[in-house]
Order: sequence, then structure tokens, then C-alpha cells
Amino acid sequence: MILAVALNPALDVTYHVDGVDWAGVNRPARVAARAGGKGLNVARVLHALGTPVRVTGLAGGPAGEAVLAGLAEAGLPAAFTAIAGPTRQTVAVVDTSRGETALFNEPGPRVSPAEYEQFSRDYRQQLGDAAAVVLSGSLPPGADPGSYAELIRAAAAAGVPAVLDSSGAALLAGVAAGPAIVKPNLAELEQAAGASLAAAGSPDDLAVSRAAASLAGRGAGAVVVSLGAHGLLAMTGTGCWRAEPGCQVAGNPTGAGDAVVAGLADGLVRGLPWADRLRHACALGTAAAAAPAAGEFCQDDYERALAGVRLAGKGEG
Amino acid sequence: MILAVALNPALDVTYHVDGVDWAGVNRPARVAARAGGKGLNVARVLHALGTPVRVTGLAGGPAGEAVLAGLAEAGLPAAFTAIAGPTRQTVAVVDTSRGETALFNEPGPRVSPAEYEQFSRDYRQQLGDAAAVVLSGSLPPGADPGSYAELIRAAAAAGVPAVLDSSGAALLAGVAAGPAIVKPNLAELEQAAGASLAAAGSPDDLAVSRAAASLAGRGAGAVVVSLGAHGLLAMTGTGCWRAEPGCQVAGNPTGAGDAVVAGLADGLVRGLPWADRLRHACALGTAAAAAPAAGEFCQDDYERALAGVRLAGKGEG
Repeated sequence: MILAVALNPALDVTYHVDGVDWAGVNRPARVAARAGGKGLNVARVLHALGTPVRVTGLAGGPAGEAVLAGLAEAGLPAAFTAIAGPTRQTVAVVDTSRGETALFNEPGPRVSPAEYEQFSRDYRQQLGDAAAVVLSGSLPPGADPGSYAELIRAAAAAGVPAVLDSSGAALLAGVAAGPAIVKPNLAELEQAAGASLAAAGSPDDLAVSRAAASLAGRGAGAVVVSLGAHGLLAMTGTGCWRAEPGCQVAGNPTGAGDAVVAGLADGLVRGLPWADRLRHACALGTAAAAAPAAGEFCQDDYERALAGVRLAGKGEG
Repeated sequence: MILAVALNPALDVTYHVDGVDWAGVNRPARVAARAGGKGLNVARVLHALGTPVRVTGLAGGPAGEAVLAGLAEAGLPAAFTAIAGPTRQTVAVVDTSRGETALFNEPGPRVSPAEYEQFSRDYRQQLGDAAAVVLSGSLPPGADPGSYAELIRAAAAAGVPAVLDSSGAALLAGVAAGPAIVKPNLAELEQAAGASLAAAGSPDDLAVSRAAASLAGRGAGAVVVSLGAHGLLAMTGTGCWRAEPGCQVAGNPTGAGDAVVAGLADGLVRGLPWADRLRHACALGTAAAAAPAAGEFCQDDYERALAGVRLAGKGEG
């Protein structure tokens, strides 16, 4: 079982409006609400792959209840620690006539030290039957930036490898705790490196490789950088790889990154060699980008994308 | 006790963003959530006036729970009928740098015939100790446009006068059922009259009087038209009045209309003569327009506004 951690999940609400009046009253024709956040998206993809998964994290208030109800409806096993503060929502306003989307991300609830302590105990217990843990997304406001690092160390002590997808201080602190795989996107790697890693709108592979190697040197087993439509670049303990999708898909970038993380975790627990693991993750990212909702993908899209992945580089395992 | 009916209440969520990116990701600096909808705003004003009030209506799902929790927190007595569908939310995006607000009003949940039948029974029981009922706002999607008419007739059968604030088909059907007072705003009266009632941006008092008299002729005891910053125009059974605020207040138009309705209902149950009733309602509207949140007003603002109201017209009672 892969344990997917969602410390700051969200109820994702989407409004479809034909021509938004940004200074007036709008009556959305279509309203959709869905349990979301990166950890849940990862879990959905793993579940769709048939890989046993459990979601854990912190949930409270009405949106927290809606998130738990949504997980149950999707058949996703979940064991959350209850908090008093209300789980956040995100609101996406899709202007169907302009083809633009405005996203409003609430920060999330404050978590008390006692509540976090309870989660920490629950998490350690759940490590008992976990083959890997995935730590994705933002921390709740006010949380210690070392929270992911602490969870990674607890997993390591239980012999469970960790996959980390975060940013900023939480990413840097987490890497130092020795996760098996870290998956920054280009912006997150640039922030960690303190330098631009793109030229003329495209990632500069050499600069990305150097920054990824530097991040790996801080303690991660492997660094896999997601480069959007440009695919993946991986610095593993034994090699360096570049995976590019065979076709371009415009679509959902959040869902794509989370599908890549799911593919990496799935490949890790199945013991896939890196070449196959990266093909799998790259194809899942491409298929997820084409899906309307984060955490979803179509099997046919995945198989087409898998056949099209161009892999370059060398390494063992 | 005044019974305030909220068939389609809402959880009103407000995001304050300094410079909204309508095609990107926004992280609201401030998030506020509040039990809302016109019926609840009316009840808040009555409660602040010290007039006994109870809120009834339909509530379900996470937002429904949040609405009930908000009412309890405000000390407002409430007796809602539970429904399976989730109570709606509204999202207001306040762009603090542009001084603009975009409002997104969800339509609300579908209500099953059995659920509405249960509400109807609960409502009739609550009429037992009601001095008046106030029916405000939109009906849930799919509801019979005659719903307010049926509730007004049930109130009349129990000897309880009704105050109606609605629009479109629900307004026209409701007026025919004989409410004591109907309060359209200018746009709602124009829609009912099928004609423009303003000239050069200001309401045309003569045209408004005619349309109000015509609406009253369809069955209402009195029609009070709210004209925003221009005050109120009333056609009662015995006269015609015009109340204008002494000073202009830019502010919250929704809250202002609901405060006018609260003032009319309060004046009705206290047996205030029309002249005093209109002064009271007009001053509450002015004070509420100056308040940051719908359903709130400051006592000092109210007293200043009351002293400033200019009343013209004639009539008895």
C-alpha cells in the first residue's frame, strides 16, 4: 500500500461562466465540487492504476467532511486526523467565452500543536503496512517548514521510502531528510537553485541537470524534474535521463504533475528499472494533462503516450 | 415573533485580493465566510433591533451546516427543514486595488417534493406564534413559482400578515395571494411592469407610482419600492408616500434592501403609522448601506439617518 499524505487538502469548486463580469453579479451555469489537493490527485491516479493506496492527512469543518465524502464516493481508502479548523476550498472561475481560468486558492486552516501531534502518531501507525509514502503539496499556514522532513525521517526509520513533491522551505528541509525521490517542477527547482534554468522559453537541459544534481547532493536519492510539455529530467543515484512525450497536449498542468508523482511512486514500489519508471511517469503525465479533472486519465491516452515516450540517457536499475 | 423564511440561503464567502489575475492563480490574503442570503440578512437586522425573530427554511450539506452554525453563533433562533441537496454558496471576489467586486451566485440545490412538503408542514406549525412572516429572495432551482403565494395564503389563513421581497414569476404569483406589503426594487418593479421607470439615471416618480399602484391592484396591501440612494416610494391602501435619505451613502445595496424589508416588517408588527414606518425603514436602509456586511448596521448611523429622512406625501395610518 502507498500512503499518500495530504496535510492541506481542498474542496475544489469550479464555476463555468460564459463571459465573466468582474465588476458585477454572475450566475454560474455549471457548478462542480470535488475533493482535491495534490495528495488526493496522486491517490486518484494510483487507485486508477490498481495500486493499493490510502490517503491520510488533516481534515476539518464542512469542506473537510465534503472531502472525506468525496474520497468515499471514489472508493479511495482514507484515514484522516480530525482538526477543529475548516479545510480550505479552492474556487476556479472558468470563463468559457474568453477561454481563461482564474483560480482562488484559500490558504487553509491553522493546525494546533496537539492536532499535529495526533496526526504524527496516526501517521507512524499507518507506516506499518506502507510500501512507500508520497508527500505532496503545501503545508497548512503556520506549519513548521520541517514537517515533511520529520515525516520522511519517521518513514525511513520504519524502512519506508518517501516521494516528495513540495516547494520552498518545505522542499529544501525535506530533501535533507533523505527521500528516495524528489519531484520539483521547473519553477520549484529554479527557486531552490536561486537561478533561472530556462532560455528562450524552453528549459536549458544542462542547467536543469546541474541544479537537479545539486539538489540530489543535499540528500535525495533521485531528483525528477517535471518540465511540463517538455517531459521529465531525472538525476538518479546511478544515471541521468531525459524523457520526452511523443506528442504535445495542452491541458491541466496540476493534474499532470500529480500523475507524474503517482507514476514515480508506483514504479518505485513495483521495482521498475529507472528507464521504465520514467516512461511510465511521463506517459501518465501526458495522459493526465489531456483529462478534464486532476487525478483522472484515460487508459487509451496512457497507452498511446507510453508508446510515444522518447527516452535518452544512461544509468543502471 | 417575526418568522423570516429563507428557502435558498447561502454561505457567503468573500476573498480579498490585491490585484486579481483573472487568467491565473490568486492567493486571497483574507477569506471570510458568513451565513447569508436575503432572509438571513432580514433576520439579522430584526435581531439587532431587539425584535423577536426566528429563521426558517431549507438547509442541507456542508454549507447548510455552516449556515446553521453561523446563525447559532449570531444568537439567531432558527428552525430549518433538512434537505439532501447541498445549500449553495456565493463567492465575492473583492479586488482591493481596482475597487471592484465580482459576485458568483450558485443557483442552490434541487428540493424534492417530499422535502418541500415537510417544510410546508413545519412552516404551518411555526405560524402559530408568528406576528408576521417575511418571504425574501430567490426560490431554489426547480421550485414552483407559486411557492411564495402558497406560503402567503397559509399565513393569511392563520391570521398572519406577510411581507414579500422577491422577483419575476415568484413576485407576481405572490402578490396575487394578498401579502400585507411587497417590496420590489426598481429593476424588479420594471420587470413586473414591463417598462422602464427611470429617466436620465433617476427613477421617474410618476411612472414608479403608477407601476406600484398597478402592482398593488393585483392584490398587495401596500407596495414599497426601494430606489437605492433615492430612498423609498410607497403606495399603501390609504395613501402615497416618498421617503428620501438626508445624505447619500455609497455602499452595500443588498444589505440596504434587506434592512428596508426588516424595517417594514418591524413597523408592521409594532403597529407604526405609515409615516413612521417608512422613516424607520428608510433610515435602516441608509445605515445598512454604510455597514461592511449585509444584515449589519450601526445604531449611531441609524439615528443620524432617521433624523435626516425627508418624508413627503399623504395618507392615513
